[in-house]
Amino acid sequence: MFPNIRIVLCRTTHPGNIGAAARAMKTMRLDRLYLVAPEHFPSAEATSRSSGSADVLENAVVCDTLTEAVADCQVVFGASARSRTLAVPNCEAREAASELITLSADHQVAMVFGQERSGMDNDEVALCHRLVQIPANPDYGSLNMASAVQLICYEIYMASMGNNNANPVELAEGRDARATQGHFDSFMEAWMALKIQVEFGDQKQSASLDARFRRLFMRAELTCYEVDMLRGMISAIGRKLPDQI
Amino acid sequence: MFPNIRIVLCRTTHPGNIGAAARAMKTMRLDRLYLVAPEHFPSAEATSRSSGSADVLENAVVCDTLTEAVADCQVVFGASARSRTLAVPNCEAREAASELITLSADHQVAMVFGQERSGMDNDEVALCHRLVQIPANPDYGSLNMASAVQLICYEIYMASMGNNNANPVELAEGRDARATQGHFDSFMEAWMALKIQVEFGDQKQSASLDARFRRLFMRAELTCYEVDMLRGMISAIGRKLPDQI
Repeated sequence: MFPNIRIVLCRTTHPGNIGAAARAMKTMRLDRLYLVAPEHFPSAEATSRSSGSADVLENAVVCDTLTEAVADCQVVFGASARSRTLAVPNCEAREAASELITLSADHQVAMVFGQERSGMDNDEVALCHRLVQIPANPDYGSLNMASAVQLICYEIYMASMGNNNANPVELAEGRDARATQGHFDSFMEAWMALKIQVEFGDQKQSASLDARFRRLFMRAELTCYEVDMLRGMISAIGRKLPDQI
Repeated sequence: MFPNIRIVLCRTTHPGNIGAAARAMKTMRLDRLYLVAPEHFPSAEATSRSSGSADVLENAVVCDTLTEAVADCQVVFGASARSRTLAVPNCEAREAASELITLSADHQVAMVFGQERSGMDNDEVALCHRLVQIPANPDYGSLNMASAVQLICYEIYMASMGNNNANPVELAEGRDARATQGHFDSFMEAWMALKIQVEFGDQKQSASLDARFRRLFMRAELTCYEVDMLRGMISAIGRKLPDQI
């Protein structure tokens, strides 16, 4: 969880959006929700849309103004569909998320979303240190609010995992482990022998065919079990072929 | 727009999700939607949720099966909540998006989403070259379908703008181009028929063997030429087998 990062929704008109935003937050490990003058809250629709993240709604802090909601924050970023002012620096979501994560190490930071249709008003924009844009279709940038919350929370979560692109690779064991090269070669030999036995391809192209077959099976990164399965198939074929061809 | 990238939604139960997905797609400049056996479509709820992206719904292609929806695709990626199998390579959304953008330069690619609750079924997973995970809260990964579509489309859009560090993949042409799913299936059918003809494996394990064979050949990401080569090998074997076994 991110105890120093809060998501602030301003003057939300549809309670369903509050629920969807809570759900979006929780999927990305964010749980501190502030609601500035919501039209309806609490609301059954918000709870229903929050699906399993009712705790985020229950702990939500309701305020009258954005000023109040960010009073104890050192850093305030606001989502904005277009770069609307040169007075507040603009940046994209990915960059903003990195900055938020870095700053949240020892600052209280807020990520603010305006009203569904109109966005933040001028007073709200004036409280922001950055305006954050989500890159989107220039001809149809109509992201709904919950989607915008989802995307920015995702970028925050991604940023929190650092620039570490290494996926934790699950290593398999036993028969699901990658076959050794020797084991793989035993299959390739059997395959090439079968190829000769059934007279596939002419003499001239033989070496090139062998190389191609090898590359394609190499690419499959076969497991032990798969090598054994393929060898089993070759043996089954061999048993059906006449002894003398 | 991305003419070579399609978004495929499988067996969607709530029409509202189809509308929300269409909207999410369009915000990120994606407009080719395929619907596999949707429970209700067309539907007023889908249209209402699509808000301004009704054109995406109007042009949606409805299919009976995922096989049909991706028959002309060379590359199929599927969204999956958790890495569920070691047999299909897993990767994260950002990496997947880079790869999709690169491959879409001259391949038809599909990004598939399973049913809302249950995700893709095993037959659907078997058609995928990659399973794509969206990094999320390990304790609450409950992204709704439209959110998952939104996040992946966003990553695709970001990747298209060059915000990716992936190595440019050299794209092949003609016989070295990736085989379409339909071409690949013609080989798999011949392979399975051969398997039955040579009586490989007992009845009980037959389906599981078929699935394993399919996965290993899927993983090889075969080119047109390689599919033809493998089919040639099967024909050569067939010519040597006695007519009656």
